[in-house]
Parts: sequence; structure tokens; C-alpha cells
Amino acid sequence: MMRNIKIGLAGFGTVGRGTWELLERNKEKVQRSAKTKISVVGIADPDKKKFDGVQINSECEIYSDAFELLKNESIEIVVELIGGETLAKEFVLAAIRERKFVVTANKALLAKHGKEISTLAEENGVEVFYEAAIAGGIPIVKIINEGLAANEILWISGIINGTTNYILSEMDKRGLAFDEALDEAKSQGYAEQDPTLDVDGHDSAHKIFLLASLAFGINFEFNAVPTRGIRGIDVKDVSFAREFGYQIKLLAFARVENSAIEVSVEPTLIPANILMANVDGPMNAVSVEGNFVGHTLYYGQGAGSHPTASAVVADIIEVCGSFFRNNGQGAGKFNTGKRNHEYANHKMTKKEEVMSGHYIRLKVSDKPGVLSEVTGVLASKNVSINRFFQKNSENSDAEIIVLTHRCNYGKIIECLNMLKNLEDVKGDPVIFRVEEKA
Amino acid sequence: MMRNIKIGLAGFGTVGRGTWELLERNKEKVQRSAKTKISVVGIADPDKKKFDGVQINSECEIYSDAFELLKNESIEIVVELIGGETLAKEFVLAAIRERKFVVTANKALLAKHGKEISTLAEENGVEVFYEAAIAGGIPIVKIINEGLAANEILWISGIINGTTNYILSEMDKRGLAFDEALDEAKSQGYAEQDPTLDVDGHDSAHKIFLLASLAFGINFEFNAVPTRGIRGIDVKDVSFAREFGYQIKLLAFARVENSAIEVSVEPTLIPANILMANVDGPMNAVSVEGNFVGHTLYYGQGAGSHPTASAVVADIIEVCGSFFRNNGQGAGKFNTGKRNHEYANHKMTKKEEVMSGHYIRLKVSDKPGVLSEVTGVLASKNVSINRFFQKNSENSDAEIIVLTHRCNYGKIIECLNMLKNLEDVKGDPVIFRVEEKA
Repeated sequence: MMRNIKIGLAGFGTVGRGTWELLERNKEKVQRSAKTKISVVGIADPDKKKFDGVQINSECEIYSDAFELLKNESIEIVVELIGGETLAKEFVLAAIRERKFVVTANKALLAKHGKEISTLAEENGVEVFYEAAIAGGIPIVKIINEGLAANEILWISGIINGTTNYILSEMDKRGLAFDEALDEAKSQGYAEQDPTLDVDGHDSAHKIFLLASLAFGINFEFNAVPTRGIRGIDVKDVSFAREFGYQIKLLAFARVENSAIEVSVEPTLIPANILMANVDGPMNAVSVEGNFVGHTLYYGQGAGSHPTASAVVADIIEVCGSFFRNNGQGAGKFNTGKRNHEYANHKMTKKEEVMSGHYIRLKVSDKPGVLSEVTGVLASKNVSINRFFQKNSENSDAEIIVLTHRCNYGKIIECLNMLKNLEDVKGDPVIFRVEEKA
Repeated sequence: MMRNIKIGLAGFGTVGRGTWELLERNKEKVQRSAKTKISVVGIADPDKKKFDGVQINSECEIYSDAFELLKNESIEIVVELIGGETLAKEFVLAAIRERKFVVTANKALLAKHGKEISTLAEENGVEVFYEAAIAGGIPIVKIINEGLAANEILWISGIINGTTNYILSEMDKRGLAFDEALDEAKSQGYAEQDPTLDVDGHDSAHKIFLLASLAFGINFEFNAVPTRGIRGIDVKDVSFAREFGYQIKLLAFARVENSAIEVSVEPTLIPANILMANVDGPMNAVSVEGNFVGHTLYYGQGAGSHPTASAVVADIIEVCGSFFRNNGQGAGKFNTGKRNHEYANHKMTKKEEVMSGHYIRLKVSDKPGVLSEVTGVLASKNVSINRFFQKNSENSDAEIIVLTHRCNYGKIIECLNMLKNLEDVKGDPVIFRVEEKA
């Protein structure tokens, strides 16, 4: 006898509608995978216009208030696609108190309030699933949690924001300035009118924090994640990077080094011939290195109605599977911030201690002795130079680009402060991280 | 109270030893993931030398006969890493009859005898897990089965044999002839002394057949898979392909088109700038396209002791999870050849009906009128030419390379038969499939 699992959808925006479409169009496949019937019996959205032209089944109630869904006792799973952190948080907590399983795509909510939510879920014997919160359609949560479950995870890096990757790709391929590429991204629907969350790296930071929690069970807070976005990147640096065999990508990192965990987001030069450098346009990719599996990489669409719906419904299927197996008892998969293992006491790597190569671009007076001054500063701090280029600039100035060997960021900052004080160095130096793998 | 799940390892070769090493070295991580203790209580291998220098725990018995493992009633999971199809088959069937769960990396066994094995497993209430059988450390079975469970799968293509990819990479990057590159692969440990299974495409065929079964629940037999390997590929074609913006890769395909399913393996030209074309050396990658998730790609090491062990142990953890949840009752995941869904009645696409672009290289007399004869033949069969190149050869001959638009393979064969009969065409034409995505 097949059960019929009843679902409530909170939020009927892009992803909410995609989820509903998937459940309609792939009904047979979904039910075969879940080994149960699945019915959407309630959808809530305050904006009635969102339902225009949509043929909703007569068994499905439409609400303007998401909390109405929680009054329906037949609903076992609620899907939170409201977004934001205020109403969504209240809703998720209330749903858990009603002992409903929660599927959400809300990375900001989980990054900032994951502990509170998971603690309450545990108390109530339900679970929160969030495959759709990270890298859209790529099943990265399942891959790390289950596919690579035998490995100690050593390194995660990823392009996990499509907006910024689209912008950087346009700057690279068409030579557009940052502002032009941003406008292009807006007109193509890849950037929002207020692009802050994407462009300044916060969205990537939310996601990498969740991945780090999953892989390492970290116990520090989201607001400690050093985050640098791509706003105002000079297209000159994108093309210099290419000339030297690199691509600039906005990378998120979560990795273990020297008994500390680095979690960070920053634009980074990576070799142009590696797979990650060839992830173009709005696509996402995540590299995961495990101590037995070695280097692996996962690629797909990181956003958009249908790819995100694919992840939301995979979670719904998983929840149904857990009902089927456990009569409703959770399997304990959500572990943001509370996983009990050896990394739990690892400190977070301070930004100054992060080891990497560095790209430094300086504008200097084009006259004798300047090179020697610049290299002298680096030598005084024991920063070793990997490659050195001089580019002639418009007027009597020259541009110097230095690629350093690996050293910690703190040393580079000391060098930059000394360089800024040299009479022949004009303006602020430009600096980027360099990694030989990603 | 934590259970202690007892394991028997049959086969202590490369992967058997890697599995044992992983279970020792990552003991804590594995037990945390599995939420149970895991102990290897028996290892069987007829070759005693394989245990030289290995510190086996005193609680673990060493046998020369794998069937001894089945007499140990405390063993709940057996890992079949014997390889081959004779003893391995007997062993797996006997294990199932003893109601032991089976984890295996044996693609040939499952491709040829999957139905018999899965039927017996169902009768005995146990399951067979085979993540390690396909693409080594890449958790592709889990990704298709669970991560993309909400999607109708439309297309799978992959580089799923590291030996042949290494050989093609060496031919491309260093200009080696096939035989030289094969010798290089042998000396690097990437090819066996008898490389038939890899080089002639059979290993890829086993794996793509399993992926097709998983995604489509096909009901045809393994021996129906059209398979062409890379033996004797001329390095000239590898470099011509590159010149025209393509890479030759040994691709395995499983895809739905016109209510039929194509499953095949053949060397194929793909655009040099797509991700799949940049999968180099012994690495593997699988592309999966779902009707909601769109195009996704998964990359990693497809063979080797440790990556394969990562997949074997992921399966062990999964089995333990199913014990934890079900008191030993299976979750019904193994479905080779018996999945009940709409593709079950789809026919297999006949080779002649497969649509693709085609690369044709002809050696012709370098004299007036020949081009017109050749293009005339293609036109007579309505084969449309995408690009056309002429290369001057050593003597008075010329080489013509034609890239066609998509048409079925049957038409191309008709053209080739006509071309061979032209007086000015010398020797046999060379032909490869061309795909614009992979």
C-alpha cells in the first residue's frame, strides 16, 4: 500500500513555481523514486499575481499567509522558499515546533541561524534538508555527506555564485569593464537590481560556510568568514592574469591546514588550463579533495528555477524515503555546527595566516632603481618571487606585476604597507590570491 | 548502544588492500558516518604473498578460500573484490543465498549477470551495492539514483576508462603513436599487460550499460551494446581533430532519442573548449543531463586503490545505514534491468539509426575533379557538409577531411561504401563520430 505524503509550499516565486512544475511534470518519476505518492496540498504566497495563469489542482489550497500551512495537520513536509531571514526564520521554527520536516533553499538563514534551527529540529525529532541552498542543481550536500562519507575531507573550493562568474567571464571574454559586465548580467537576468549579496561575496560566503559545517563540523560563527567580492575589479587585471596563464575566479575555500580550518571567499588567480578555470558564464562547480578519493569536481547550474527545483525535490524524495524506512523518525543528517568530530575544536585560520601565492600589481615611475627598491622590500620580508613582469603604461609610468611563491597573507600586507610608502610607487597596489589548484 | 557490523573482504589485490587501509586509517570518520562500529573479521585471498608486510588485526581471520567467509555467521556484509566473472559470480550468488549484503566493484559481472544477481537478492531480502564498479571514486550511482532522483534523465556521456584516456592524452600532448602511448601507459601502470578489456572499449561498455540500467531501467542484454575502442587510432587524426577545434575522446553514451535508448562506446570528436574535452590523463568524468537540472558533470579518479576504496566504503556505510534504519531489511536500490518505468519498453537504438556528426578522412589522388566526386557522393545521400579541409600529403596524394552535419550512421556507411569504390580514393576511409556537446 502506497502512502500519500502531503506537502506544503511556502513561497511561489521562481523556485517555488519551479518546484511545483517539477512535481506536476515529473510526477511519475518522482513517485517512483520516492516509492510513495506525493501531493502538494497547500501553497502560500502573499502575492496573488504569482498564481496567474497557473492551473492549480483543486485539492490544493492557496493561502496568502504561510503560517496557514502549519495548521493543516495532514502536511508532513513544508518547503520554505520564502527567502530572507525574518519571516523565513519564524516560519521554519514554527514548522519544526509542529513537527513538520523542512526542506529549504535558504542559505542565508542556515548560515546565520543553523545552530538554533538544528537544535530545535533535534528536540522535535524532525530534520531540515537544504540540498538546494548550495550550488543549485549539483547534489553537493549528498556527495559530501554520503558519496564521500569514507573520506576525511581536506579541501573544498568552488565557484558557487553564478552572477559573479558570469560577470568575470564577460570581462574576460569580451574585455568589458566591471560596471558594463554588471549591467549585462542585470539585463540577462543573472544579477538582481541590488546585486550586493552576490557581487560582494556574501552569497558565496553563506554557501561555503554550510559546506564547511558539513565537511568539518566547525564551531565558529558565520560572521567570522573573511569575504572579498569582485566589485570594482579592473579588467586590466583579468587580462594580465590571462596573459600569465591564469583566470580570475571568485572562489570560496574551506580547507584544513596546520590544524586550523580556512573558510573564506575571494577573487583568485588559478591556472587557465585546469577544469575550474573553464567553468564559464553563470555555471557553478565545486572541487572536493578527500584523503582517499583524491581530487573530484562537480559541475552544473547553480541557480535558476528548474535546477534549484531539482535539488528541492531530491530532498523531498529523501524525506519520503526516511518516512518509508523509519515511520517518520529522522536519520540525523542536518549537522551544521554540531557535528561531533576531531575538527570540532579546530580554530579558524586567521586571514593573515592563510598561505597562498599572491599577484601584486604596482604603478611605479619608469626610472632606474625602482625595480630594485620593490624587490628589496619583498626580500626584506623573505617573500620569494615566482615571476616578475613589467608593462609599460600610457605616460612615464610603468606597471609591475609580481607573482609570489606561497607565503602567508600577513607578510604580503606588511610588504604592501612598505611599498605604498615608497616615493616611486603611485597609488594603491592591487593584490589577488593565487592558487595552483582549485 | 552502537552495533558492530562485521565485514568479510574477498580479494586482497589493489582494491581489497586499499579498502582495508581505508577502514584502518579512517576508522573514526567511517564509524561516525555509519553511526556504527565496523570490523573486518575475515579476509580471503589465495595468494598468501599479498599479506606480506600488512599488520592484520588478530581478530581478523585470513582465508585462502573466499567461501570460508560465508561460513562465518557473524559477517553481515561481504565485499567482492575477486574480479572476473567465474569465481566472483559463484561467490556473490552464494553470499546472497546466505543472506549477506554484497558490495562489489565488479562491472563485468553486473553487466553480464545483473538480472540473475538482483533477482536472487530480492528473493533473499538483501541488496547488492556497486558504486565502485563505475568511475571509481566518483559517486555516480548515488548521484543518478538519489541526487538527480527528481529528473527524467535524458543524456549520459562519459570518459569512464582511465587507460584509454591516458593513451589519447599522450597521443595528443606528445604526438605519440598509439603503440608508443600504449607502452607508456603500461610502464606507468595505467594499462595491464593484456590491455584488451580497456583498449577495445569493453570496460567502458560494462560501465555505461550499468549507468543506462540505472537511469533507464533498460531491458536489453549487455552483448547488444555497440562498442568501438581506440586500438590503432592514427595520431594524425588526433592532431587533425585538434586543428579543427576538437579533441578525440573515448566516450560512452546512454541517451534517449525518438523513444529509443542509445547505449554505445566509441571514440568521438568533441569541441576542445568544453569541460569534457579537458579531462586529461587517467581521469574520468561523467556528464548527466536531466530534464530539470540541465547539464551536470562529475569528475575524479576512475580507478586506483584508494579512490576505488572510497566508493567501496561509501557503500559499506550505506548498507550499515540501512541496517540502522531497517533492522536489516533492504531499501531496494539495486535495479539493473528490472526498474519498472516508462523506458522499460523502449527499444535500443540500432547503430545505423544513431544520429551524430561525422568526421571522414579520405586519401585521394591530388588531381582535378576528385573533390567534386567526393562531395557528389555525400550530396547523393543528402549528407550535409559542415566543414571541409584538404591537406597535402607526402607524394601526389591529398587528404580530405569532411565534417558532416548530424545524420544517421547508416547513411554515412552507405556513403563510405560508395567512396571506397571511387578510383581516386585510396585505401579505407577513416571515420569518427562528432558531438557538439558531451
